[in-house]
Amino acid sequence: MKLSARNVLPGKVVAVTKGATTAHVKVELSSGVTILSSITNEAVDELALKVGDSVSAVVKSSDVMIGK
Amino acid sequence: MKLSARNVLPGKVVAVTKGATTAHVKVELSSGVTILSSITNEAVDELALKVGDSVSAVVKSSDVMIGK
Amino acid sequence: MKLSARNVLPGKVVAVTKGATTAHVKVELSSGVTILSSITNEAVDELALKVGDSVSAVVKSSDVMIGK
Amino acid sequence: MKLSARNVLPGKVVAVTKGATTAHVKVELSSGVTILSSITNEAVDELALKVGDSVSAVVKSSDVMIGK
Amino acid sequence: MKLSARNVLPGKVVAVTKGATTAHVKVELSSGVTILSSITNEAVDELALKVGDSVSAVVKSSDVMIGK
Amino acid sequence: MKLSARNVLPGKVVAVTKGATTAHVKVELSSGVTILSSITNEAVDELALKVGDSVSAVVKSSDVMIGK
Repeated sequence: MKLSARNVLPGKVVAVTKGATTAHVKVELSSGVTILSSITNEAVDELALKVGDSVSAVVKSSDVMIGK
Repeated sequence: MKLSARNVLPGKVVAVTKGATTAHVKVELSSGVTILSSITNEAVDELALKVGDSVSAVVKSSDVMIGK
Repeated sequence: MKLSARNVLPGKVVAVTKGATTAHVKVELSSGVTILSSITNEAVDELALKVGDSVSAVVKSSDVMIGK
Repeated sequence: MKLSARNVLPGKVVAVTKGATTAHVKVELSSGVTILSSITNEAVDELALKVGDSVSAVVKSSDVMIGK
Repeated sequence: MKLSARNVLPGKVVAVTKGATTAHVKVELSSGVTILSSITNEAVDELALKVGDSVSAVVKSSDVMIGK
Repeated sequence: MKLSARNVLPGKVVAVTKGATTAHVKVELSSGVTILSSITNEAVDELALKVGDSVSAVVKSSDVMIGK
């Protein structure tokens, strides 16, 4: 499936923290910048996310602000 | 002002396209990856955004999905 | 690529309206319910979206409210 | 109150899971498709959400992506 | 319909600007603060939004950041 | 850093509730209206958010709906 989301940033999972319902997944991009993603525990389980996985951080353009 | 948003990605503006009400701003990160941001024309004007500007793409963690 | 987004609703494109920068895509689900998606013109072009296409409407759980 | 949100999908609550601060509510649409919503525990309490309730899943158009 | 969204800010419409597909609606709260909402032209038409209308700006908690 | 987000509502923190991964921060605006923000525990720690702090609730225009 190809997505309309314009931002797909490849990286590696460096941390997975499951909460009661919501998990935090940290992804390190090749540039060294770290992205934090807040998703459901259910998604972490279904994708079997773990440290070292090659993944992409995906963001819809309308969710990106600009700071200057 | 310090923001709660966890994702602040520094880069350079490589394109600004204003529409009728909504503008698209492309930001190239140091890694060469390009981020597309969809914001209001009003914000483009107020921040005086133009090609070459040093900016940050800012994203709240709850707006980041993971693809694997 | 498998996505963390929990909501993937299969349907058919029944309308594509491009604006200056932002496009509206209407998707009819098998149940007859229609979903409206607001995405970039660029995404419409890259996915070559047109009436009759089989697609999925994709929504992150944190973007779903409940009305009662 | 009438809402600007274009997507209002009627269904029945099939699961409510409260976390520490964030709850997950599963809604089954008439088509059999299941929608997951991530909302505050506070909202679950105020709407007194429970299995069997007739509700709607509500989504703003700018939060809907297209996959093809 | 009662909504799970925690933030409902009452005010008056002070401007409606329709674009090609996306409209901007400005709402002045009783405190004098102005809120900008970006919604579909379709929603503006369906709600018949015009200057002077009493409306509410509605925001899901997961879309609110904190700046300090 | 100046932000593209059009909505910056000044107020005072009246409650901070940390969950397992996600925190809820309540901000009272000068008008007496209360805003609920759902952010990461990590952000609460980094901004050292506590009751009484002067902060702003920040919302992107595309995340604001209108109810009438």
